[in-house]
Amino acid sequence: MENYSRLCIHTITTKPWNLKEAVEKYAAAGVGGISVWREALQGYDLAAAGKMIRDAGLEIVSLVRGGFFPAKDEAGRKAAETDNLQAIAEAEALGAPAVVLVPGAVPGLPLSDARDQIEEGIRSLLPRTTEAGVKLSIEPLHPMYADSRSAINTLASANDMAERIDSDMVGIAVDVYHLWWDPDLQAQIKRCGEKGNLFAFHICDWLSPTEDMLNDRGLMGEGCIPIKEIRGWVEEAGFSGFNEVEIFSTQKWAMNQDAFLKEIQDAYRNHA
Amino acid sequence: MENYSRLCIHTITTKPWNLKEAVEKYAAAGVGGISVWREALQGYDLAAAGKMIRDAGLEIVSLVRGGFFPAKDEAGRKAAETDNLQAIAEAEALGAPAVVLVPGAVPGLPLSDARDQIEEGIRSLLPRTTEAGVKLSIEPLHPMYADSRSAINTLASANDMAERIDSDMVGIAVDVYHLWWDPDLQAQIKRCGEKGNLFAFHICDWLSPTEDMLNDRGLMGEGCIPIKEIRGWVEEAGFSGFNEVEIFSTQKWAMNQDAFLKEIQDAYRNHA
Repeated sequence: MENYSRLCIHTITTKPWNLKEAVEKYAAAGVGGISVWREALQGYDLAAAGKMIRDAGLEIVSLVRGGFFPAKDEAGRKAAETDNLQAIAEAEALGAPAVVLVPGAVPGLPLSDARDQIEEGIRSLLPRTTEAGVKLSIEPLHPMYADSRSAINTLASANDMAERIDSDMVGIAVDVYHLWWDPDLQAQIKRCGEKGNLFAFHICDWLSPTEDMLNDRGLMGEGCIPIKEIRGWVEEAGFSGFNEVEIFSTQKWAMNQDAFLKEIQDAYRNHA
Repeated sequence: MENYSRLCIHTITTKPWNLKEAVEKYAAAGVGGISVWREALQGYDLAAAGKMIRDAGLEIVSLVRGGFFPAKDEAGRKAAETDNLQAIAEAEALGAPAVVLVPGAVPGLPLSDARDQIEEGIRSLLPRTTEAGVKLSIEPLHPMYADSRSAINTLASANDMAERIDSDMVGIAVDVYHLWWDPDLQAQIKRCGEKGNLFAFHICDWLSPTEDMLNDRGLMGEGCIPIKEIRGWVEEAGFSGFNEVEIFSTQKWAMNQDAFLKEIQDAYRNHA
């Protein structure tokens, strides 16, 4: 049998399945890890959900997602802090070792202000995240999301921030979809590893053409991202964790999800 | 009357108008410059078109566009060279001082190879561009176009290439739409000016949400780009040329173009 022990799937990737279905299907297919989206936990007791996942033989890689720190007013920033504390509490109850942070951005708020608010927001979580033993992974997002989802758009920018914060509890999630175009990527991955900040590695592919800016990601091998090459850089940088398949795709969600899971495994073997 | 002497409009911005209409309308509105898309020249004698534009009191800023150098085979690269020589000849006949180069990319061709091919392609044009007195402006495109339109996606990357080529005939077109998200933008604009490579400045806005990756650009003030701030950086870097409005928008093209031209002028006064 093929070895899928380092393959992790994000629950959003097979959105039509509820958490129980996803856990059973991934485990039956020999997949090693699962990253759980908070939406998938609706209606579940968190500790029981964590036990169900572990009992099925899956490792919980991350809880997804916190972040979205910037806001135009104090109330908005306070709401973000509350939600992030809640995410850390959920990860702790579930038994997830880390929370992925989508940094956030607000149209019309200067990016430099947004970056300051992101850094301040993460710093404010440090006491709680240390106490809970839940790490925080900053995920730089593609520059096409700089308007409303992330003011951190390159690995250099995320490296700068993680190094300034300088905590064992704060690192970075490297996602090929967001970063593949950057001529500085190899060097920044090396730096990220050397500083101990390479916490997670997400894979999927960039379709040509891309029909929708949010929900038209491709399966590995369907697009133009040199996934194997980037995975090589990540592993040279010392990373030995999971390869997390995170795909938002209206087309894939419309498929039979059993067939899609098989495609994910084929793509993982051949193109990642 | 307001001063529109440094306002330039790209013919594609008012695509429903043919060249003669665009020239008459821009001139009647007091607009100072025009950048001519090659598509708009179909059916015109180039020298006569140039004379028509100058006689109307408009300055020709650029011919748009050449480039698209990378290809998967030698025939494709040769075809690109031929087309670029043709673009230079057209600019010379029209009396345009520069050609804007969209660098190009090909899905599946490694970006590092594409970058090498772009640089080689530009170098191959140097004798002809010098002879014709037609400058070449490399336009770095947003990273969301790295798959099929441009392997040059940051001003740093364009600066590197222009400095390596090191010719008075080769510089850069800075477009806020492509570059606004970059935390390094101010420093790279300064560098671009200091090296004498700041040839052109394009403006429009980034809409939130953006519904289409190609044809949903906004008018200045409709989106989240700090256009005045970036224009300030460009002028501090020594640029005193035109502010070129380049908008691809299915919605704007469906408008009455006289009303749209008025909106462009209002937006230019208030938000650029």
